[in-house]
Amino acid sequence: MTPVQSRMLDALAPVLGPRGIVTDPADIAPWETDWRGRFTGRAPAMLCPASTAEVSAVVAAAAEHRVALVPQGGNTSMVGGATPGADGASLILSLRRMNQLRSLDAGAGLAVAEAGVILQSLNDAALERGMRFPLTLGAKGSATVGGLVSTNAGGVQVLRFGTMRALVRGVEAVLADGSVHDGLAALPKDNRGYDLTQLLIGAEGTLGVITAATLALVPAPAQAGVAWVGLASPADALALLRRLQAATDAVESFELIPAGSVAAVLAHVPGTRAPLAGDHPWHTLVEATAADPAAEPPAELLARLLAPALDDGLIADAGVAASEAQAEEWWRIRHSISDAERAQGPAAQHDVSVPVADMPRFLTEGAAACEARFPGTHASGFGHLGDGNVHFHVHAPAGADPARWYAEEAPAASRFVHDLVESMGGSISAEHGIGQMKRDELARLASPARMRALKAIKAAMDPLDILNPGKLVSPAPR
Amino acid sequence: MTPVQSRMLDALAPVLGPRGIVTDPADIAPWETDWRGRFTGRAPAMLCPASTAEVSAVVAAAAEHRVALVPQGGNTSMVGGATPGADGASLILSLRRMNQLRSLDAGAGLAVAEAGVILQSLNDAALERGMRFPLTLGAKGSATVGGLVSTNAGGVQVLRFGTMRALVRGVEAVLADGSVHDGLAALPKDNRGYDLTQLLIGAEGTLGVITAATLALVPAPAQAGVAWVGLASPADALALLRRLQAATDAVESFELIPAGSVAAVLAHVPGTRAPLAGDHPWHTLVEATAADPAAEPPAELLARLLAPALDDGLIADAGVAASEAQAEEWWRIRHSISDAERAQGPAAQHDVSVPVADMPRFLTEGAAACEARFPGTHASGFGHLGDGNVHFHVHAPAGADPARWYAEEAPAASRFVHDLVESMGGSISAEHGIGQMKRDELARLASPARMRALKAIKAAMDPLDILNPGKLVSPAPR
Repeated sequence: MTPVQSRMLDALAPVLGPRGIVTDPADIAPWETDWRGRFTGRAPAMLCPASTAEVSAVVAAAAEHRVALVPQGGNTSMVGGATPGADGASLILSLRRMNQLRSLDAGAGLAVAEAGVILQSLNDAALERGMRFPLTLGAKGSATVGGLVSTNAGGVQVLRFGTMRALVRGVEAVLADGSVHDGLAALPKDNRGYDLTQLLIGAEGTLGVITAATLALVPAPAQAGVAWVGLASPADALALLRRLQAATDAVESFELIPAGSVAAVLAHVPGTRAPLAGDHPWHTLVEATAADPAAEPPAELLARLLAPALDDGLIADAGVAASEAQAEEWWRIRHSISDAERAQGPAAQHDVSVPVADMPRFLTEGAAACEARFPGTHASGFGHLGDGNVHFHVHAPAGADPARWYAEEAPAASRFVHDLVESMGGSISAEHGIGQMKRDELARLASPARMRALKAIKAAMDPLDILNPGKLVSPAPR
Repeated sequence: MTPVQSRMLDALAPVLGPRGIVTDPADIAPWETDWRGRFTGRAPAMLCPASTAEVSAVVAAAAEHRVALVPQGGNTSMVGGATPGADGASLILSLRRMNQLRSLDAGAGLAVAEAGVILQSLNDAALERGMRFPLTLGAKGSATVGGLVSTNAGGVQVLRFGTMRALVRGVEAVLADGSVHDGLAALPKDNRGYDLTQLLIGAEGTLGVITAATLALVPAPAQAGVAWVGLASPADALALLRRLQAATDAVESFELIPAGSVAAVLAHVPGTRAPLAGDHPWHTLVEATAADPAAEPPAELLARLLAPALDDGLIADAGVAASEAQAEEWWRIRHSISDAERAQGPAAQHDVSVPVADMPRFLTEGAAACEARFPGTHASGFGHLGDGNVHFHVHAPAGADPARWYAEEAPAASRFVHDLVESMGGSISAEHGIGQMKRDELARLASPARMRALKAIKAAMDPLDILNPGKLVSPAPR
């Protein structure tokens, strides 16, 4: 610990109390490495404030002492966005003790949750009141509200409800000088200048520290229906999605999966079996829900809407889950793809998006171009078709040495994929953010106009560069 | 015209051609005064670029010569946001020649419209393809896409579809150095740092000049239903709204109107008549639509959902329009309120919002407090209950001299209303923006944290203060 860090901790000790300052390396260690073990840093202390006023004191002290902070929630970043640097210059600012659900108004469809509230807890609390928070993802048992807001998290229900950006009704945040921005009031119409809430969403803790958010709740689904569809191509899947969307608002997931990914799951994940009898080059998993118990059951709705698509040959086969257990089995296949493909050998994985209409072309022509450029690789994508969001994997040639391939070949393949995405007007980060992992790729590929704007905003909002430095973007020079 | 303005025009002449530079005062005059005639300024020239490249050249020249620009679309600002200052230092940058609908993809539900496209034209083009752009407002025949985006426009369908912020899928904008930010690609998931699209929405042309936007379209309604309801209080109206929203997504307008406003319309607008027989202290106008021709007709849906509210006394009376003509008559009452109330005498009008749950209290207790503070005045509000957006009018005492009242009393009443709104966590600008009219009130009432952030962002994005100076916020000193 540097002398100035010590002085900062001394100044904060009376404010935060003994639980608020952690300096035992053993207690800090789990939070210095990201959950996938790809990024490790070092922080001489972890600050754990329990209130907005305490966060404000921490940030003000950091500004006074010029000590950088790395805001952290559940530590589930996929891009090293919450991991400190290796030089020990930053302290971790953990928001996990700020875990109060300040209010939940089922009538208004609003909850005010502090940054440390875990996604699963929020949803459980909403369900008790007949509501739900319509965003879920794999890390729901660890991911916190502050992190979800700061990374504009996505998930499998974006098709119907949008990302966090569409679900956040207001935020409370501590800005870089320690001042508190109270923007929690949910105002459907508010035109008082630049929207600070929207600016802080997805800013990865580099412009301010989110301490609480007002979130939209929707009625809990009274009924759900899940279908598995076999079809010939991504283009057919997109045509099917548009038919469904023209007919109903009830579809909330539409996942596209290539045959190879289904086969990988069946081969590597015990207890899984093929949802449909025959062979199909592509599959989609569709879920629809209804909040109204008197509405047409979603399973019947899906069966009714899929029938004409079967008749006219748009799709080859389809099944509707006969039970909740069967629906869960099918979802398990979808959620097991990444693990199953990892079991098959090394692969470079990419979280990218392109305009929805271009996704079929990206999945077919893009994969072919990638395989042509890197002979022996196999490229394939699966994911949220309605969001234009594909998890695109480039698998190493058979027999490749994993360590060597990851070090020498994978980076080039990733740059190739990112160039392709950029050429189609897409995004090199669909839902995981930039963090430290994609910072240099963002700088390489973003237009000069975008890059200058990002750097200018960072410098304006965090002139001392004390909020999550080294992540997302470096500030413009003064 | 100053010598430097002349030099700038000389430099731009070969780029913009003769149609692109207007210097005849008679041609400029209509654009120097806002449409309600409340703000007048002076601009020695009006620049009318016809392409993004030309806008880029204009802004680059403005930066080089340090000449300020006032971006303008249909000139329908309610807060003087598009009117130049009186000193002649700024040139008008009219986007009206950029009026191409670049694309309209009904399948994807997306249109790319240039800044000068008029709202009505956009909607007409969408309707030809079975779609609609679900935002409308009084100025739809003049208001342009660029202005609608730049002011985050609202209107009467926000309840279901949100403001422009929820409908914009991307923007193209010229930033203050003349560089072009191409953010038109519609990417439902895109986490490449700070969301420049969201930052430019509602920025009133002070951070960049929007040249085009990608906008969401929804299926055109196949059917609509309109109901008029008489009830006892705003609290009952809110309870009714929440019942309707729990049962259906089909409600897209829910307008709350006090008896006095209905009476004003019936007294001053020829050909209007009361929708319901008896007397009711409050009224609501409800509209529901369905895109699916096979869905339950919205008029039947409304009748079915209103019946139990009548039975249990939540509402006193209700009628469902028997024809489109009747529905239009009812909407005419709603749209005539401002004119009718103006005919009754001077009033200070306010476009404000409070959290939806607090709106009944604001309408009753707030009005009473206002009348107590300014004896002889009558205060009343009407508007979009589901948005927390009330058009709140403070009517001068009977016999007050209009000129004197507007000059001496109205400003104090407005400050009182704004203080009240602020104390309830509301917004002093719900949908009209800040412009020049509310700039000082924003500076007076915004928290120091918010104000510092707004000024820092302005200074970062427009360091020379050449984009719509004097509107919204002044930049932080360097």
